[in-house]
Amino acid sequence: MSDDLSPRIELAVRDVVSRLIPVNVSARHLHITQEHLEILFGRGTQLTKLRALMQPGEFAANETVAVVGPNKRVFETVRILGPTRSRTQVELSFNDGRYIGLDLPARLSGNIAGSSPITLIGPKGVLQLEEGAIRALRHIHMNAGDAARLGVQNGAIVGVKTVGPMSVTFNGVLIRVGTKALVEMHVDTDEANAAGLPPHSLGFLTEGGSR
Amino acid sequence: MSDDLSPRIELAVRDVVSRLIPVNVSARHLHITQEHLEILFGRGTQLTKLRALMQPGEFAANETVAVVGPNKRVFETVRILGPTRSRTQVELSFNDGRYIGLDLPARLSGNIAGSSPITLIGPKGVLQLEEGAIRALRHIHMNAGDAARLGVQNGAIVGVKTVGPMSVTFNGVLIRVGTKALVEMHVDTDEANAAGLPPHSLGFLTEGGSR
Repeated sequence: MSDDLSPRIELAVRDVVSRLIPVNVSARHLHITQEHLEILFGRGTQLTKLRALMQPGEFAANETVAVVGPNKRVFETVRILGPTRSRTQVELSFNDGRYIGLDLPARLSGNIAGSSPITLIGPKGVLQLEEGAIRALRHIHMNAGDAARLGVQNGAIVGVKTVGPMSVTFNGVLIRVGTKALVEMHVDTDEANAAGLPPHSLGFLTEGGSR
Repeated sequence: MSDDLSPRIELAVRDVVSRLIPVNVSARHLHITQEHLEILFGRGTQLTKLRALMQPGEFAANETVAVVGPNKRVFETVRILGPTRSRTQVELSFNDGRYIGLDLPARLSGNIAGSSPITLIGPKGVLQLEEGAIRALRHIHMNAGDAARLGVQNGAIVGVKTVGPMSVTFNGVLIRVGTKALVEMHVDTDEANAAGLPPHSLGFLTEGGSR
């Protein structure tokens, strides 16, 4: 009996393990251009590293700004993630947006045209941006090798199921294949709270994922 | 061709429609005993109706209390839902709990033994409860006729999938059959935000729902 079952059990375990996806919670943060960084922090400022993030080369900076919404409510300490980028973009949860008076659009990182206005305050200056505040759409980073192993392609839409008493399946999760990327799904704090997820968690890739 | 397809299309539409579940968002609220109501609002106080809720006999009361957490942060206006009950129970989102310093347990309504301590302030008195603050576990109310139509039983665990760009499938949703209940799923504001749900929405009953 055990001779019959053990290969099946091994296959089942391999199948489950092969679909495990690290799920990390993104608290509110921003990406910034070098030009905007210098307006807020002074000429010649460079971001300095507080700690490395999971994706190679990315880091949480020591530098933080205050983020002000249209209702004048403030998040006093919002961390910049480095390195600097070609666009300044503030990523908040939907709940954060409600608190500071914004009905945030759900956008993929980088796609900020027509997104919500936002004001940033640094030690040396203030920036009133006409757009740039978004709620990040769910996505999974991975490299081409991971994609092949998981049987998905860049741009594919999948589902990711979490476990536990508040289990949810996140549908409509986009696969983003990058040369050096490690497998990692980002969810915002609303999503983490809804699923009862700790900061570093695991989900399972599921089929479908249609919205 | 259309003669072949139209019955199938009709069946598919009927299948989808038959699985539609109204999903309503519960903001933070509380249920209260008559004894506690009188401590907070004065001897002889009766709840008065602001508006009826979907479930027969249930209503949002005009009466509100302030809810204070262990870190002394306050939600100033938390509405009582009537009628009075045999236990006082404060239902908050996980995010609400974090704000006022509580790591809320996920509980079915009524199951408050060992849940979080909470302080309530009314116009005539204060209550320091040793337990009673919870995050409500997801569930769907329905009557026996609905349950038969949907092919589920009291106590069954199902999934409910929402639609839209932030679609999620809520797993582990408990079926609660009540004599007069109407079909209705309640989610908290974390869950609504994660799924991008408006206050009155629809989901689809899905198979499985395992956690």
